[in-house]
Amino acid sequence: MPVPPSPPVNQFEGGSVFLDGAFAPLSEAKISMFDWGFTRSDVTYDVATAWQGSFFRLDAHMDRFFRSLQKMHLAIPYSRAELREILHGCVRAGGLQDAYVAMVCTRGVPPRGARDPRQAQNRFYAYALPYVWIASREKQLAGIDLHVSERIRIAPESVDPTVKNYHWMDLVQSMFDAYDRGRDTSCVVDAQGHIMEGPGFNVFAVKDGVVHTADRGVLEGISRRTALELCAHFGIPVRVAPLPVARLREADEVFLTSSGGGVLPIAKLDGVPLKAFPGPVTTRLHDGYWALHDDPAYRDPVSYAP
Amino acid sequence: MPVPPSPPVNQFEGGSVFLDGAFAPLSEAKISMFDWGFTRSDVTYDVATAWQGSFFRLDAHMDRFFRSLQKMHLAIPYSRAELREILHGCVRAGGLQDAYVAMVCTRGVPPRGARDPRQAQNRFYAYALPYVWIASREKQLAGIDLHVSERIRIAPESVDPTVKNYHWMDLVQSMFDAYDRGRDTSCVVDAQGHIMEGPGFNVFAVKDGVVHTADRGVLEGISRRTALELCAHFGIPVRVAPLPVARLREADEVFLTSSGGGVLPIAKLDGVPLKAFPGPVTTRLHDGYWALHDDPAYRDPVSYAP
Repeated sequence: MPVPPSPPVNQFEGGSVFLDGAFAPLSEAKISMFDWGFTRSDVTYDVATAWQGSFFRLDAHMDRFFRSLQKMHLAIPYSRAELREILHGCVRAGGLQDAYVAMVCTRGVPPRGARDPRQAQNRFYAYALPYVWIASREKQLAGIDLHVSERIRIAPESVDPTVKNYHWMDLVQSMFDAYDRGRDTSCVVDAQGHIMEGPGFNVFAVKDGVVHTADRGVLEGISRRTALELCAHFGIPVRVAPLPVARLREADEVFLTSSGGGVLPIAKLDGVPLKAFPGPVTTRLHDGYWALHDDPAYRDPVSYAP
Repeated sequence: MPVPPSPPVNQFEGGSVFLDGAFAPLSEAKISMFDWGFTRSDVTYDVATAWQGSFFRLDAHMDRFFRSLQKMHLAIPYSRAELREILHGCVRAGGLQDAYVAMVCTRGVPPRGARDPRQAQNRFYAYALPYVWIASREKQLAGIDLHVSERIRIAPESVDPTVKNYHWMDLVQSMFDAYDRGRDTSCVVDAQGHIMEGPGFNVFAVKDGVVHTADRGVLEGISRRTALELCAHFGIPVRVAPLPVARLREADEVFLTSSGGGVLPIAKLDGVPLKAFPGPVTTRLHDGYWALHDDPAYRDPVSYAP
């Protein structure tokens, strides 16, 4: 399918969607109620970010998106180069500098009455919105209070967490648990009581200078990867292994990683202040994360030329 | 929110949707790409059926829908009487006699940039389509070949299966496994190798005159309930308990229950013919299921008066 010419800068001020082969305003960002992407959550997606006019690690996000598509028996009618063009076009049309940029592929709608997903034509959508933070800046400064829920994350044997997916009912219900307890957000565990992930982020503990995070059952976040690469770069020891809840609770520092803010320090666990907030390791990784945005290897500037 | 007056019969021939407080043609059946019902599968639904101009066990479906809403922290702006009016209106506007009638409530769209589900206004949708069968009539006559997948159903500890939900990635992927093997549809198991359910149906085995089906980890289907009630009525012994794959494979008869066809006999398991197809117990329950459609206690006639 041909990609339309690059849209005018700011054509759809504040955000833009790409669907049915064309750029459009956000008000047109709708999907069919009968798309299996909705009625079966039969969909994969990825979210890249742009910061100060440049995409950050866009290749890593596109790599993961194409891997997810393959694992899901889904296909988009665009090459990698065309996908890049579309994502740039969404940011450009939205006139955005700091952006949340999603690429989504749904199963589509099988012919009326049919229940065979192979008969559906897969649908591709993309959109750019102003950058979305996991927590507001005010909340980040005040200090995020993380609830460690007893809810059990959907097991990797049922839904492959390395395929970025919308199976979030467990995560959303854990958010309600958190709010009921006066906390700000939540993370969930596996059946053996290991920390898994939260709604849109990976979880890290720092104890005696060692950084700990879950090895399996979680999304292989690009920001998680960036944090681990920064640890290697800085010579900070890491342990990627099952992370028991008890180890998190006795941590010196806890932080989250997400495309919605990079490296975010946690102040409290279930109301109990952590030893350090923001801790020295978290601060180093936070600063390193944002410094990497100037690295030409990770930058992909959006053209705003008219 | 007031329910609009009953729409004209056949106003939207072949099917109708109710959204934003009004009846509309199916072409308008769209949801926002930013609705958490899509981006978090943060949604519950139910599907009732109409047959020969009457709803079947509509109260049971509405009961379950309201229970699901409560468990999900979701709410609709309609009373039970209004919900009934809307569902009748969808069938009436579609001019349908045999209909698949869905009621859906999504979390909605939180304010831009917010990630707090409590800030979203929940959305309600309903629609009526021509009756949808789990398998075509030709396939039912030829005999459905069921693949018993090794995929593990999302555990009830993660997603409450008694809340009707769209977390189907495991089920849809098992359908691809089935097609790859030349089978017609599939069911999945739990981590201990017990039969769970298939995409849209419960699974039953009959052995030496006893009917077996899973006790937990599955949707509490209204058609499943109807089959169990029919067993009680006919004096057929039932065993509602964990159902090992081996017990299914050595069954005399296997059948499915679904609002998409009631009681449907299975001819083969992974290509191996069952001892009886359609077996005597299955046939009795199948006939009983359709006979119940004439029971005034279960019928709720749609008014087609102009």
